[in-house]
Amino acid sequence: MDTNRIEAFSDGVFAIAITLLVLEFKIPAIETLGLGLLRLWPSYLAYAMSFIVVGAIWINHHTMFDWIVRADQKLLLLNTLHLMFIAFLPFPTAVLAEAFHTSSSQDVATAFYAGTLTLIGVLATAMWRYAASQRELLDPAVSPEQAKAIEKRFLIGPIGYGVATILAFINPWLSIALFIGINAFYLWPRRFRVTA
Amino acid sequence: MDTNRIEAFSDGVFAIAITLLVLEFKIPAIETLGLGLLRLWPSYLAYAMSFIVVGAIWINHHTMFDWIVRADQKLLLLNTLHLMFIAFLPFPTAVLAEAFHTSSSQDVATAFYAGTLTLIGVLATAMWRYAASQRELLDPAVSPEQAKAIEKRFLIGPIGYGVATILAFINPWLSIALFIGINAFYLWPRRFRVTA
Amino acid sequence: MDTNRIEAFSDGVFAIAITLLVLEFKIPAIETLGLGLLRLWPSYLAYAMSFIVVGAIWINHHTMFDWIVRADQKLLLLNTLHLMFIAFLPFPTAVLAEAFHTSSSQDVATAFYAGTLTLIGVLATAMWRYAASQRELLDPAVSPEQAKAIEKRFLIGPIGYGVATILAFINPWLSIALFIGINAFYLWPRRFRVTA
Amino acid sequence: MDTNRIEAFSDGVFAIAITLLVLEFKIPAIETLGLGLLRLWPSYLAYAMSFIVVGAIWINHHTMFDWIVRADQKLLLLNTLHLMFIAFLPFPTAVLAEAFHTSSSQDVATAFYAGTLTLIGVLATAMWRYAASQRELLDPAVSPEQAKAIEKRFLIGPIGYGVATILAFINPWLSIALFIGINAFYLWPRRFRVTA
Repeated sequence: MDTNRIEAFSDGVFAIAITLLVLEFKIPAIETLGLGLLRLWPSYLAYAMSFIVVGAIWINHHTMFDWIVRADQKLLLLNTLHLMFIAFLPFPTAVLAEAFHTSSSQDVATAFYAGTLTLIGVLATAMWRYAASQRELLDPAVSPEQAKAIEKRFLIGPIGYGVATILAFINPWLSIALFIGINAFYLWPRRFRVTA
Repeated sequence: MDTNRIEAFSDGVFAIAITLLVLEFKIPAIETLGLGLLRLWPSYLAYAMSFIVVGAIWINHHTMFDWIVRADQKLLLLNTLHLMFIAFLPFPTAVLAEAFHTSSSQDVATAFYAGTLTLIGVLATAMWRYAASQRELLDPAVSPEQAKAIEKRFLIGPIGYGVATILAFINPWLSIALFIGINAFYLWPRRFRVTA
Repeated sequence: MDTNRIEAFSDGVFAIAITLLVLEFKIPAIETLGLGLLRLWPSYLAYAMSFIVVGAIWINHHTMFDWIVRADQKLLLLNTLHLMFIAFLPFPTAVLAEAFHTSSSQDVATAFYAGTLTLIGVLATAMWRYAASQRELLDPAVSPEQAKAIEKRFLIGPIGYGVATILAFINPWLSIALFIGINAFYLWPRRFRVTA
Repeated sequence: MDTNRIEAFSDGVFAIAITLLVLEFKIPAIETLGLGLLRLWPSYLAYAMSFIVVGAIWINHHTMFDWIVRADQKLLLLNTLHLMFIAFLPFPTAVLAEAFHTSSSQDVATAFYAGTLTLIGVLATAMWRYAASQRELLDPAVSPEQAKAIEKRFLIGPIGYGVATILAFINPWLSIALFIGINAFYLWPRRFRVTA
């Protein structure tokens, strides 16, 4: 099976998941609108973070499917599970914003958010490992050494987010700083092209 | 009429229906966030099940349109009805999760969910039967014997879900076990390609 | 400007508007789930009607863009206004279902719904009339006589829905019967191809 | 990186953001349905304005990507930020409608809305400036003079909306009149093609 439709379908899920993030915003009590809008800062932060995270995952997904040229049933299943956690992201995002808004359970909320991102990263890495193990799914131009180097790059996500999940119980802000670092790594212009 | 646009439109509906499933999640009372998130297990289960069900239906829809090469008005109408029940799925999913969350009316909720899947399956089978009866809509490479074998494969869905609808009134968990079995059958790597 | 992107963008709006219709369903009081689900019949009816209406509009939109081969700024503006009322449809649908659910203000709700459909139809006809008046936007294979015949076909929508809007104040069910008739006309297999 | 996927992904976000605008509508108290629907005029106005604004931004985005033929990581990042504010628009739209509905805090709500549009415009201009500064991203047919002329055209948005943000504190209706003027400028048929 050729990968065009999988990419188009995945793009649809990415675009919708990213756009549904806005639904977490609730209109504040109107008598103090200016202040109410300012007090929503945890929602703005959570929205921006999730938007950028999904943007970075989308870029990684595309990069992966530049190298994967064919799909079999197992890859399709892994991709569906990957999308399942991406489409789930608006919920941990809302939980995170609410916890910082009410200043309570910030550790659990941050760990829940980071845990979701860890699973997204694990599934992305699993997809790549599987594709790399079935050489007929990969573009023949990708050498085994390059496949290894790409795998290392993909591993940064789940490992980094896994550490962030644990860090959340020590200090949620430290965990959030790590999210920002991971995304800066993935999105930073210079670092983008892997040349193994 | 050529089938590209129908497939693209259907893909859009699939991608959106699958992504709207997340809207069933409500933030639990924040004072007991950890426990609250754990207690949402019926929602996680229902979300995952519906996501995988829609994923499996999407794959079947694609497989069908690999063999259907032309569409007429009647096929278009059947496809619209098929999509109507797929886009409806987030509602039975939410009803199912709520019933298990409150431990009440689990039989009715499971039957409602299974009934919706039965109708989705009936319409998928009807589309295929109609296309197979109008030979000019099918790829000429599909022999009448293959068309019959494919029809049998499509029938597993509505029959299995029909049985699950009745089972729900005996034991909802038995019904859910059957859902999982049907989807494992459709998604299991080895079983995917039909060679009649 | 070539029409591919306009069609793809319009398809996206159609697919999303049609899928958002499900959000009107609210979980009924769980103690009487079976009865609660049955009492939602106005919502099921409204959902199915709107789904089929949007399906029929989508087919008409495609048929129109089979004949329109180029777009200018004015056509783009008319198309944006057309989409604006289609994307609005989930609201009148919810209003209609609520009115029949509570057995009150059914006339106003039906007129509101029919009025929205009338505007959708007026804008579809306006798009076609504009395209037909600028011969360089149309496929040269469409003769002026055919363009007139197609326009008549498009006029059935706004005129029929306009009558339904007025009928709603006499008897809402009569108005709804007219909706069903109009859609049967557009979707009925035999009647689909216009041969002017 | 070629720009097709970026455009397709952006189109998805545009189509979804524009369609989610309908979710701001809440069913009015049913006993006074006719009056209740009329009293929603601020929601209709806000909905129509945002729909047309997103339509105009979509056209500008397309025009831009007719001239941009390649994308690098930095352009991708700017585009993601641009989409982030477009997908956010349903929230300021709902805030604006609510403020006019309750006749309170109209200045803050209008400024919040105009401020969001200003940021959308700033990011659109930044994308174009960046692409124009990296000549390998642009279609070679675009001369440096044309690139400057196009930049001027793009600047009308952020400057106009910036002024509208300040005007909101003097008179919200003046600010809204300016929105309408800016969109009339972008959408007005004659003015569309820039010939520098």
